[in-house]
This record gives sequence, C-alpha cells and structure tokens, in this order.
Amino acid sequence: MAQIIECIPNVSEGRRADLVGAIAAAIRQVPGARLLDYSSDASHNRSVFTFAGDAAAVKTAVLAMYAAVLPAIDLRAHSGEHPRLGAIDVIPFVPIEGVTMAECVALAKEAAQEIAARYGVPIYLYEEASADPARKNLEDIRRGEFEGLAAKMASDGWAPDYGPSAPHVSAGASVIGARMPLIAYNINLNTDRLDVAKKIAAAIRHSSGGFRFVKAAGFELKDRGLVQVSMNLTNYEKTPIFRVFEAVRREAERYGVTIRESEIVGLVPAGALNAVAEYYLQVSGFSADQILENKLRANDDGE
Amino acid sequence: MAQIIECIPNVSEGRRADLVGAIAAAIRQVPGARLLDYSSDASHNRSVFTFAGDAAAVKTAVLAMYAAVLPAIDLRAHSGEHPRLGAIDVIPFVPIEGVTMAECVALAKEAAQEIAARYGVPIYLYEEASADPARKNLEDIRRGEFEGLAAKMASDGWAPDYGPSAPHVSAGASVIGARMPLIAYNINLNTDRLDVAKKIAAAIRHSSGGFRFVKAAGFELKDRGLVQVSMNLTNYEKTPIFRVFEAVRREAERYGVTIRESEIVGLVPAGALNAVAEYYLQVSGFSADQILENKLRANDDGE
Repeated sequence: MAQIIECIPNVSEGRRADLVGAIAAAIRQVPGARLLDYSSDASHNRSVFTFAGDAAAVKTAVLAMYAAVLPAIDLRAHSGEHPRLGAIDVIPFVPIEGVTMAECVALAKEAAQEIAARYGVPIYLYEEASADPARKNLEDIRRGEFEGLAAKMASDGWAPDYGPSAPHVSAGASVIGARMPLIAYNINLNTDRLDVAKKIAAAIRHSSGGFRFVKAAGFELKDRGLVQVSMNLTNYEKTPIFRVFEAVRREAERYGVTIRESEIVGLVPAGALNAVAEYYLQVSGFSADQILENKLRANDDGE
Repeated sequence: MAQIIECIPNVSEGRRADLVGAIAAAIRQVPGARLLDYSSDASHNRSVFTFAGDAAAVKTAVLAMYAAVLPAIDLRAHSGEHPRLGAIDVIPFVPIEGVTMAECVALAKEAAQEIAARYGVPIYLYEEASADPARKNLEDIRRGEFEGLAAKMASDGWAPDYGPSAPHVSAGASVIGARMPLIAYNINLNTDRLDVAKKIAAAIRHSSGGFRFVKAAGFELKDRGLVQVSMNLTNYEKTPIFRVFEAVRREAERYGVTIRESEIVGLVPAGALNAVAEYYLQVSGFSADQILENKLRANDDGE
C-alpha cells in the first residue's frame, strides 16, 4: 500500500494573496506532494495548507515552504486575531495510510532538525512527537506568542528541541509534531436551551473530566432555534464517534432533550465511519480488507 | 473518477484445475481487466471468477472466456450439485465506481449481442437488464437446467433475448445481466431455538412478505449453541443494512431473544457501511467527498 502522510502547516499570512499563492506553488512543485486545499483568513491573518504524500515528498515540501516564507514574512510587523509564535507557526504530520504514528513522529523530528540546521529557526516538538507532558499541547507552547518568545525561551524548561536558543529575528519559532486526524463533529439538540448544550459539552470534554480526546463547547444556532454541542475529536481510534454520540444522547435525556441531527464538518477518515457501522451492527471479525473498494485498489498496487 | 465495473462469471467446471487456470489466464491477459479472485467447488463442479475494469476491458475479458471455455466444456457430459443452464452459466455486471446501473445494463446487452453473434450461444438477460418480470430472477430462467433447455426454449415466452432459438449443442445458453453488489450478511442470535431464526427469516425476506431486496433463511450453529439468520442483501441502497438489522432485532425481541453479533461475509461496498454510520449518528448533509481517503484519491486522478 502506498504511504500517505497528511501535512497541514499553518502560516502567519492571510492577507497577501500573491504570497499565499507563491507558498502554494512551492508545495505544488515538489514531485509526489499533492496540495489538497488551502484557505486564508484575513482577520486571523493566517493561512492553512493541506497536502499529502510519502515521507520524503512531504518533508521536501515543508522545506520548500520555509524557503518561500522566510524572506517574505516578518512577525515584527504582523498582527492578526489568531495567536502565533512563528511565520510558519505549526506543522502537524498525520498518518493516513500505510504509515504508523511512530513513523510520523520520526518524520517530524527529521524535518525539525533539517529546518533548524538549514534556516536557523528554533523548533518545539508537540503532541505525539513530544515526550514532555508540559510541552504536548500547542496552546501551552504558544502561550506568550511571538512577542513573548525571547523571554519564554530563556526561562526554565523552554529551551527548544532543535535550533538556536533565541527566536529567529523575523520568523520566531515553529511548532512541529505528529497527531491523529481531527474530526470536527457537531450534534444539534431539539431545544433552544443554551445551558443544556453547555452542560453536555462540559460533561463530555477532556478538560472538565470527560473523554480524553474530545474538545467541546455549547453554542446557539439562533436562526434555527436550536443549540449545538460543537466538538473536535482528536483521536477517533481511542475516543470513537459512536461513544461520544451515545454519551451526548444520554446526557441530553437527563434534561428531557433529544438529538435533532449531527454533522461531520469537513473531512473524516473512512476508518472512523467504519467503526460506527461495526459498533451499531455488532459486527464481529470485520476487516477493512472486506471493503470492496479497498480490494480493488489493493489490486491496483499489485499490477 | 476511473470507471470500475465488477464482473462475476460462473462457469460449469470445478474439477479440472488446469482448465480453470487457463480461464483465469484468459482474463488476466486482457489489458485493464484485473482478476481479483477465483474459486472452484468440486461437488458443485463450478467455478466463480471475479474481475474488474472499465466497460471495454470487462467486455473483452468476457469474450476471451468464451474462447477458452467453448472448446473445453461439454454440458452433455457434465454433472454437479449446482443447477446450470450453460457452460458459462451466469454473467452479472455490477456497478462499483464512476458508472451507473444503466451503463451496466447497456454493457450487458452489448456483450450478449456479441457473444450470440460470435459464438452462437443463446443469451437470456436477467435482473436489471431484463424488462420482463417473469425473466428477471435467475432461478426462473434456469429452471429445467441444461437438460430441459431445448424444450423450454421452444415453449411460449422462453425465446432467448439474443442468438439462436435452440441451445448451443455443448454450451447450452448463458444468463447475462446487471445487478447491484450482493452483501452476504448474517445475524447470530442468543438462543438455540431454530424456530425463532426461521420465523425471523420468514418475516424479513421478500419471498414471504418482507423487504424487497432480502433473501433469508434460519440455520443452527450447533457447535456454538446459537442460531443464525443468514441473508443476502441484493440492493443495499434500497434495502439498507441498518433497516434489516433493526427489523431482526425487533422481531427477536418478540421471542425474548437478543442479538449476539452480526457478520459481513466477504466483500461489502464502502457506501453500504457509510449509510449505517449516517443512520445511527443521525448525520445530516454528509457526502462521500468528505471521506479523507476519497479526497486523496480524487486528487490522484487530477494530477
């Protein structure tokens, strides 16, 4: 099976369309790197690129992004609503097919080392690539932002994993690591009671005692007269969608509320949906090799 | 998206391994036709080949099978447990990806016409390719078998759709058509009461008043002390897995019985499983384009 790693760099530029286009072009010109999507937010002054390929192609594309970004973005003159530490702020590597998390961690470390050596940008590892519990969460590493970075880097416990022990003068630092694919998942409730959505969100999210790989908040959908439990599922293998759905349903019952519908926002790995089908059908002994399309594609590789 | 049609010819030879191998080789040598699987049953004296490709490749492979089979199989000297009408007995074309059922029906008719013209084998259309309700089911067309074929073909309403109005002397006739992928699906019950499995099978199968695209029977799993409702789902879009599962669960409750587990035997289309996930999660507005692997593959095609 061909190796597929997804890479989703976040860059601190969301206003200059020509520069964003030039960064996209730098990714596209790498053989084997397929740019799937990119989008910019002007008020955040930030762009997100999504591309995929094998380890070698993805690493080459990341290095090509630095070559395009470093001469063009100066964080000393950058403002935007979204917190950021670096010109290339965050780079997650995500295992999709034919590749393990351990291999993505190894790739993150290799890329970090080469970026630090070639461009002099200090790198913090995060998520699965970080062994230090205090330096796993992006929010913890990014706290203080670019403006506070020099002081933070000089303080106890905040030496970078790779590169110089002071910020790059215009590009700050980058946070690089490996993580599972995120699933953006919302459940809409048959009620307009915002307190119910907020209580359910608090019950199921990790930060307040819920499932380990769930982030959640309650929102109003005013135009529809409904409320929503809006979630990010950060590891669908360890905290699967069906378990979260059933927990929300049960919590809602306690308030006499039912589920109107749920929504998967953006992309979802096939394995996350297959696990839902297996759960509700009580399927035993199922393998992804039994999916007709996988069988057809496996054969494609063989000939 | 590349066109993928699956073709599953059933051939009346399950004992001569050299001949079965030669038929497989005839399929394999067609460019664009990918032989996925083949298996023989000696007591049935029958082999099933599974291959896939676009319309042109699949049709070429079918014609190549006739060239290999006609000189080698003589039904006048053939015996086996499985009913059969022809040396190449049945050929279904199944739409998998980038192709409609109507296109598979057109392909079945084209192949039928060419086989009749080139090899003088009469052809009956079946399933979606047949417009006559009395000639849709394979069992109805095959009733009387090879031995009764000459009389049947001469009787009212049984002229073939293509080719001569008498059987091919050694190869009989072939039944060719288009159908949805079959799903072999079993539900095991927490009881050893065979009557319960048989009553549930009768309740859900088409032939006795149940769902239109379900065939079902009740069996004992003696070594496990359980019974099984064993099913073929013949159109998962119109009679989806989840609806059948829920109906079996509800019928079982009426006898105080619960479901132990279910099993998907062999291959299942990804769409059939995705529909299960959408149903139980009450997902609204979902599209297969949101599946990460599909997005990655769509992009593969583009570059």
